[in-house]
Amino acid sequence: MSKSQHNIPTPAVRRLSLYLRQLDAILANDQKTVSSRQLGESLGMTDAQVRKDLAHFGQFGHPGIGYRVDELIARIRCILGTDRPWNILLVGAGNLGRALASYRGFAHKGFHLVAVFDSDPGIVAQTIRGDTPLVVQPMSEMARIVKKMDARLAVMAVPADAAQEVADQIRAAGVQGILNFAPIAIQPNDCAIASVDLTVHLEQLTFQIAGGDTA
Amino acid sequence: MSKSQHNIPTPAVRRLSLYLRQLDAILANDQKTVSSRQLGESLGMTDAQVRKDLAHFGQFGHPGIGYRVDELIARIRCILGTDRPWNILLVGAGNLGRALASYRGFAHKGFHLVAVFDSDPGIVAQTIRGDTPLVVQPMSEMARIVKKMDARLAVMAVPADAAQEVADQIRAAGVQGILNFAPIAIQPNDCAIASVDLTVHLEQLTFQIAGGDTA
Repeated sequence: MSKSQHNIPTPAVRRLSLYLRQLDAILANDQKTVSSRQLGESLGMTDAQVRKDLAHFGQFGHPGIGYRVDELIARIRCILGTDRPWNILLVGAGNLGRALASYRGFAHKGFHLVAVFDSDPGIVAQTIRGDTPLVVQPMSEMARIVKKMDARLAVMAVPADAAQEVADQIRAAGVQGILNFAPIAIQPNDCAIASVDLTVHLEQLTFQIAGGDTA
Repeated sequence: MSKSQHNIPTPAVRRLSLYLRQLDAILANDQKTVSSRQLGESLGMTDAQVRKDLAHFGQFGHPGIGYRVDELIARIRCILGTDRPWNILLVGAGNLGRALASYRGFAHKGFHLVAVFDSDPGIVAQTIRGDTPLVVQPMSEMARIVKKMDARLAVMAVPADAAQEVADQIRAAGVQGILNFAPIAIQPNDCAIASVDLTVHLEQLTFQIAGGDTA
């Protein structure tokens, strides 16, 4: 972990991902350069915010040109660490886990699902269909496979009441980051945690449809 | 839609949801008041950011006390429109759709799944298990059910190549907001759209583990 990360606000890192999605779309449209204003506008942000976010990571723009799209994409991918592929584990092979195993977006962005685990003996040894068929492994195999496959990330799709215990097992197996789908806060214990709370997204919609009434 | 919403930056609305989660946890811990500093710290934000976000929506704090937790929760729920229950549709009853139908977090936050739709005749009439069993309906029934159930939100779990067409059908049926799980940008066409891009969350983890190297 480089020293420079520690001073970067989390929302700025999150916005880097959004800039990257937008830049990918701009590049797909054959546009070679982009201004901070144009990049911000497409995301509902000011040009000042874009420049401020990028300034955390160095000097990017070219006077009179703006940003070179391919160059900025490469730099952001380097900053985010996604300029290299990542092997990921899936822990929990219930409905959500099986759905995530089939989610094509992961591999498309360089995240390769290499193993699936479940604590239920009735599910272990079943075959899960993702990009490639995978046989569900028992939890006891995790540490060995993490090491063998250099898998540093896990997607955890387990019930809320099991989530902390399973997260602790994942961390003990040597995984450094967990994407948590259980609607509960996980204590990190030296592991990076990102949680997907689907209701947060629904609240953004209810705000737009019916909220904002602060009178 | 009230007038006041139009000037509020999207990230500030998103942070309201995060404040709300944190306040729920603080209340569950029997704490009655909270300072902007304490609320911000738990989320990696400054007290100034918290005050600025909340100032968009009115006057909340009490001098020398901070915020009353229960009062701030009620005010934010009112702002977000989640002080009332919402009936939601699920469109797409494949793996991800079935997983989402079983996701307990929705109902827990007042989002009630009332109907499931799919365009595949082989899936229509099957029973999906959510909080309550639901029979998958054909797309042609959507407009009638939206009206009957006053369902203004839809969760859309369909493949990327079908997503825009299905979103247009959902909007035509009278739905006002769509939570999109396909890894593709949807043209809103007068409908509120929120997209869940799972790889954005993974990038936050790779940044923490290996990124930030801007040298």
